[in-house]
Amino acid sequence: MYHATGTWETLARLRREAPLIHNITNYVAMDVTANALLAIGASPAMVHAVQEVRDFVGIAHALVVNIGTLSPEWVRAMAAAADAAVDAGKPWVLDPVGAGATPYRTAVARELSRRGPAVIRGNASEILAVAGDAGAATKGVDSVHASEHAREVAREMAHDLGCVVAVTGAVDYVTDGERLLSVENGHPMMTKVTALGCAATALVAAFLAVSDDPVVAAAQALGVIGLAGEIAARESPGPGTLRWRLLDALYQLDEEAVRQGVRISD
Amino acid sequence: MYHATGTWETLARLRREAPLIHNITNYVAMDVTANALLAIGASPAMVHAVQEVRDFVGIAHALVVNIGTLSPEWVRAMAAAADAAVDAGKPWVLDPVGAGATPYRTAVARELSRRGPAVIRGNASEILAVAGDAGAATKGVDSVHASEHAREVAREMAHDLGCVVAVTGAVDYVTDGERLLSVENGHPMMTKVTALGCAATALVAAFLAVSDDPVVAAAQALGVIGLAGEIAARESPGPGTLRWRLLDALYQLDEEAVRQGVRISD
Amino acid sequence: MYHATGTWETLARLRREAPLIHNITNYVAMDVTANALLAIGASPAMVHAVQEVRDFVGIAHALVVNIGTLSPEWVRAMAAAADAAVDAGKPWVLDPVGAGATPYRTAVARELSRRGPAVIRGNASEILAVAGDAGAATKGVDSVHASEHAREVAREMAHDLGCVVAVTGAVDYVTDGERLLSVENGHPMMTKVTALGCAATALVAAFLAVSDDPVVAAAQALGVIGLAGEIAARESPGPGTLRWRLLDALYQLDEEAVRQGVRISD
Repeated sequence: MYHATGTWETLARLRREAPLIHNITNYVAMDVTANALLAIGASPAMVHAVQEVRDFVGIAHALVVNIGTLSPEWVRAMAAAADAAVDAGKPWVLDPVGAGATPYRTAVARELSRRGPAVIRGNASEILAVAGDAGAATKGVDSVHASEHAREVAREMAHDLGCVVAVTGAVDYVTDGERLLSVENGHPMMTKVTALGCAATALVAAFLAVSDDPVVAAAQALGVIGLAGEIAARESPGPGTLRWRLLDALYQLDEEAVRQGVRISD
Repeated sequence: MYHATGTWETLARLRREAPLIHNITNYVAMDVTANALLAIGASPAMVHAVQEVRDFVGIAHALVVNIGTLSPEWVRAMAAAADAAVDAGKPWVLDPVGAGATPYRTAVARELSRRGPAVIRGNASEILAVAGDAGAATKGVDSVHASEHAREVAREMAHDLGCVVAVTGAVDYVTDGERLLSVENGHPMMTKVTALGCAATALVAAFLAVSDDPVVAAAQALGVIGLAGEIAARESPGPGTLRWRLLDALYQLDEEAVRQGVRISD
Repeated sequence: MYHATGTWETLARLRREAPLIHNITNYVAMDVTANALLAIGASPAMVHAVQEVRDFVGIAHALVVNIGTLSPEWVRAMAAAADAAVDAGKPWVLDPVGAGATPYRTAVARELSRRGPAVIRGNASEILAVAGDAGAATKGVDSVHASEHAREVAREMAHDLGCVVAVTGAVDYVTDGERLLSVENGHPMMTKVTALGCAATALVAAFLAVSDDPVVAAAQALGVIGLAGEIAARESPGPGTLRWRLLDALYQLDEEAVRQGVRISD
């Protein structure tokens, strides 16, 4: 109840303030991410040239760094932008897409995780890969088992890195190392639409931009996109429909829907 | 009335001739731009390698240069393609996305603006940024005030650069430095779908490709996409729906809809 | 009948095994390609950095190389990934987008075609361009004439390169140099949605990943996406609608629809 009320208040503030969200994200996710940010009421920009990322961070309210389609030139820009955000006291969010899949990707994700993100959001496999050289198996698909396991790893990582870690899956866990919130919104068909996890990360950045409480803001953002996905999935015959209905739902979410639909608990 | 009739004639010619439009555009805009060009009846191609842009300009009927997600390598290709278009007597259109947001972006936009575009299309902030080191405030969001102000700046810029300048907003202004056309099509929800401004720029290129009158062709293209947006917005619950309905509307526009719906005036 | 039954069996296996498809594809196609692969039941990933493509091929079940928005850096990664796939005995599919349009593009397509693809899929113009320095006209749009002509060229190319060649158009022809299958699924409105050819190539890779018979698997994949397009086109007012309905149709295809709808013949 507490969090559902708070979620509405944060969302209403987001719509009033329309924060500018600077995204350095992957090619696949750009379209749906920009559209999700617009639909929820934020102002998105995709800017990656190392010649301008520092300047753009200067006018943005939050930054997204998503390594989905990384390359060395982009990684340099990601690091520069992250550092600029930290210097300016602006929150940035790391999405370590595919960490664990290749050594290069894992190394980049781990390196970026130490540059002061406010939040790291990934699925269980990705969070485990960023967490560990402990030799644990980091490949394979997300599962309930992995998600439960990643929850405790996330808590340790959050503690060690001094940030919030969000592990998303059937249930999302969000922790700052002390507090642990769980979010039970979402729909299985959302996994059949590409880049909704990336869009979720961008919404986390938008919520952070208008909040002083990162762990709660991150959970609220995940609750909101999950709820929009639930609404969109009703009567959706497939993922083609789900995608555009989800954007409509983000745009239409009102106080009643948020208060009744968001399921965040301690 | 004159312009509505002319708009239909240009659109009918576009559909008969299916001009090949060469796009060097941003990652966010590529999908909706290609789909908008296909829906209206043109043939889009996205080609950016410096190794082939000159050759591709040689077979294209018009070129789009959009700096939304620029980088030095791409800027080199943009300049080479623009020069090739001028050399070949083919029209090219500049979209100075985000000019004013960072010094790098503003410098690139201004440099490209001097390479002989047939049309420059931007929102008020972007046009003001390209126009001036006059010290005027070039940041901030588009507004009625800025749009009115940009109208006169656009006229001067068009005169100085010898091209057409289109400032888009609630009302679009299109000028070649002498004539000034205004276009009153469009719908506010269009601002909640990413890259429709970029798609509008691409439609301007497609109309230029089949017309000898750039200022009129640019206004016609803006009238057509605005009208398609109005049709799409009817009964649209949100921007997810609006986007696909806009593509359907571009595809379906017929003589009656164009004659009755396009609102271009001197 | 044989092929319709076989198509359903391959599709059912694909859904059970959810093969990981590694895509090095163009910027325009990434979104619809990823969504088409998810909708049909595969697991897509877009990975292009030369630092990680070999490693990623190691965990993937098939590879797509699509040159739609090529550049020298990406071409290096394409070659490295293709070689890694051949070394690992994994199938890879080449989509020579726009071959024939510029000398650079044609040269890259021809060079890649000699690196052991399991399947090359293109339209008639592209296949003719890859096939020949025979001086034949390789520019211009696809046509029935070209398609018929390309069919025999495809057979020779398949024989010479030791791979399967698929020429798509109103009728698709798939040949390994000996056998020649034709696929009569699809709908003309599909040509008004960008990158459905690219998505078809990715589905070919997904079908190859769960089959031992490349010529049949390629035809089955083309039959499936064509059938989904037919279903989507029913009552579609335009290409905006067609696109999301096609994704829904891929997701919903069941045994009855496949058995009755897929039209593959020897």
